[in-house]
Amino acid sequence: MNIDIAKRVYDRTWKLDPIVRSLLDTDFYKLLMLQPIHARHENVRTTFTVINRTKSINLAAVIDEKELRDQLDHARTLRFGKRELIWLRGNTFYGKQQIFRPEFLDWLADFSLPEYDLRIENGDYVLEFDAPWSQATMWEVPALAIINELKSRAATRSMGRFELDILYARAKAKLWDKIERLKKLDGLRISDFGTRRRHSFLWQSWCVEAMKEGLGNAFVGTSNVLLAMNNDLESIGTNAHELPMVYAALCEEDGCLRESPYKVLEMWRDFYDGNLLIVLPDTFGTAAFLARAPDWVADWTGMRPDSKPIQQAGEEIIAWYKARGRDPAKKLIIFSDGLDIDSIETAHRNFNGRMRPSYGWGTNLTNDFRGCGSHPIPLLDPISLVCKITSVNGKPAVKLSDNLAKATGGKEAIDRYLKVFGEEGRGVQAVSV
Amino acid sequence: MNIDIAKRVYDRTWKLDPIVRSLLDTDFYKLLMLQPIHARHENVRTTFTVINRTKSINLAAVIDEKELRDQLDHARTLRFGKRELIWLRGNTFYGKQQIFRPEFLDWLADFSLPEYDLRIENGDYVLEFDAPWSQATMWEVPALAIINELKSRAATRSMGRFELDILYARAKAKLWDKIERLKKLDGLRISDFGTRRRHSFLWQSWCVEAMKEGLGNAFVGTSNVLLAMNNDLESIGTNAHELPMVYAALCEEDGCLRESPYKVLEMWRDFYDGNLLIVLPDTFGTAAFLARAPDWVADWTGMRPDSKPIQQAGEEIIAWYKARGRDPAKKLIIFSDGLDIDSIETAHRNFNGRMRPSYGWGTNLTNDFRGCGSHPIPLLDPISLVCKITSVNGKPAVKLSDNLAKATGGKEAIDRYLKVFGEEGRGVQAVSV
Repeated sequence: MNIDIAKRVYDRTWKLDPIVRSLLDTDFYKLLMLQPIHARHENVRTTFTVINRTKSINLAAVIDEKELRDQLDHARTLRFGKRELIWLRGNTFYGKQQIFRPEFLDWLADFSLPEYDLRIENGDYVLEFDAPWSQATMWEVPALAIINELKSRAATRSMGRFELDILYARAKAKLWDKIERLKKLDGLRISDFGTRRRHSFLWQSWCVEAMKEGLGNAFVGTSNVLLAMNNDLESIGTNAHELPMVYAALCEEDGCLRESPYKVLEMWRDFYDGNLLIVLPDTFGTAAFLARAPDWVADWTGMRPDSKPIQQAGEEIIAWYKARGRDPAKKLIIFSDGLDIDSIETAHRNFNGRMRPSYGWGTNLTNDFRGCGSHPIPLLDPISLVCKITSVNGKPAVKLSDNLAKATGGKEAIDRYLKVFGEEGRGVQAVSV
Repeated sequence: MNIDIAKRVYDRTWKLDPIVRSLLDTDFYKLLMLQPIHARHENVRTTFTVINRTKSINLAAVIDEKELRDQLDHARTLRFGKRELIWLRGNTFYGKQQIFRPEFLDWLADFSLPEYDLRIENGDYVLEFDAPWSQATMWEVPALAIINELKSRAATRSMGRFELDILYARAKAKLWDKIERLKKLDGLRISDFGTRRRHSFLWQSWCVEAMKEGLGNAFVGTSNVLLAMNNDLESIGTNAHELPMVYAALCEEDGCLRESPYKVLEMWRDFYDGNLLIVLPDTFGTAAFLARAPDWVADWTGMRPDSKPIQQAGEEIIAWYKARGRDPAKKLIIFSDGLDIDSIETAHRNFNGRMRPSYGWGTNLTNDFRGCGSHPIPLLDPISLVCKITSVNGKPAVKLSDNLAKATGGKEAIDRYLKVFGEEGRGVQAVSV
């Protein structure tokens, strides 16, 4: 056996095995959103809060506080590297060159993650980021990835070498079985959206490489910017709920509130075009959004429904495009809510051809170890962990969504928003992942 | 990434990735048999012949002749290493110290594999070893391991990195599922007999480590001497058909022939005792062997039936021990013919308690990749490849066995043996592995 002695000795000196090692290890949409946030909203102060919706897992009992702080502290030491900035500047995204403006990239060069506030309340962690929007927003993905990987490490800590070998062998075989089913879907376009919920960075890397190998061009890319760069893949993603949530929170008047989702789209159009013109219609309810949408919204490239059952969401959007006189078959529809192989197959059967469906596959791509242990290991199951904007300049940030189980913002504010946007088209579905 | 540059550069200079790298990479019973062969039969000249019983695979079409010669030539350069001889001398085998005599170990120190004869006849390889018995016998296991691994290399040569990753992931998961079923068998005693039919050396190593990890003490050891040494496991095995085949071939008279199986046991008893006193009853038919066996044969530790359906073999042996007034529950019975998880479970259910069953698990332990490829890869399926003694001092070596599909020796000689040993208790079953 030929062992690199220097490496072994060096490895022993590690104080930490850092989970997040690059500021590009985040979702692409965070960068796309960051550009207008920085350019237009430097004076907005926000709080982002990590919320564990899976009540059966107490994270404080599972994750050591010092380890968590060490990982968060390490993430704060990160800066965008020179070659990372060069890549952002020189790369083509969604077929366009130079979508990031020079002034933004110069500002990014000095970017670092702001302070965090970690405390224990009612026996579990409260992790919050109170900072200018353009700083706090960047914690979302690394904070979630860190907690999820620390949970994975806790779940695997007592496992032997063989148990681990088998665990990953089974997980690989399980994912590959899914990929073989995906291969059979004509005209499939699917991407990795699994950074935040991943089992670990190395596992996500493997999953992304497996998708690239197994699906070829049907795998259109990954939301993870670092993995996109490392694997010469497209960076995928556009925008998220925090934009309409902040725009809404900044409104004093109900009229302003009602119009705020469209103001977000106007702002977005000032920065981007083409395939980046994707509407996220569900922040305050899809039905209300579509009913009041100005006609130019129907000219955008497509929509990403995110909280309604897929079938229902697709039919609603098709009907709307038809009502507005547009051909739905030319429109992109991006499904990204709790997908797995069965729901992807069903959605593709139902919508391929009727629209141009695309799939953003998250948790069940990068964190599906269910049934892979020699005995059930509940701690390996993915949890519904989110990092949501909760306050904007001291006022509550509200999300209603189409699924009231996903609503956030406090009763009083939610009630006001429900009055403004209406109750139409909402349900309550269990949130699995 | 920290790369050992020296290792990468060195690896590039390899002319060969040798399959057999140690003379201990063989079955333990070859060494146990070699000791009396060397001590008593140095003047016996034998031919061993590699026979592929799987007619659907033409090995000459699959394996490059130069590669095969390079591997065989490399095996001939091997000598027993100093620490290997020290281990053979100092180790305890089957609870006994010093079962190898100093004179034998001194002779082993200079041992090397004799010449081979490789040619093509009727479009396929003929591989023969014509040499003194004490040399030719040692080719059996390395020759089979080399051919089987070259076949594996041919099967995997065109596969991509991910395809291979998934192949081995699935094979690991498959074996582990079997191990989890084995875990549930009370009082299980099982060992690895899979050297000759292994997919590859590294794969067998993994399988042995997995069995050790998964089964603990229920995994009693491996027939592979090198893996036993490396993993601090027991070396398992006793004797094989070649002993009675040679003793029989050396007989001119039918009377001598009829007694020859018991002469072998007398010789064996001069060298070994205790758990090494295992009878292999089927060389010329179990029924004939048991009917004529002297009473002291029933005092031996147990039997290894090798060519009859398990259920039938077990019942026959139990009935025989009872008829001879011995308690079968105290006798060892070693099943080793084409076992897999289902047949092990069935045998254990039927015989555990009634005898002391033990399992020598071969091909389906170390070479089961069926269903592990993304598409069927017939070349990965194990083949029924054997290396049998075919001639002794110029006369044909005969094996009848309980399954006439396994008979070897030429029609004339087989007919003579059938007359001497009788037709009783023989069947014809398909030979799978």
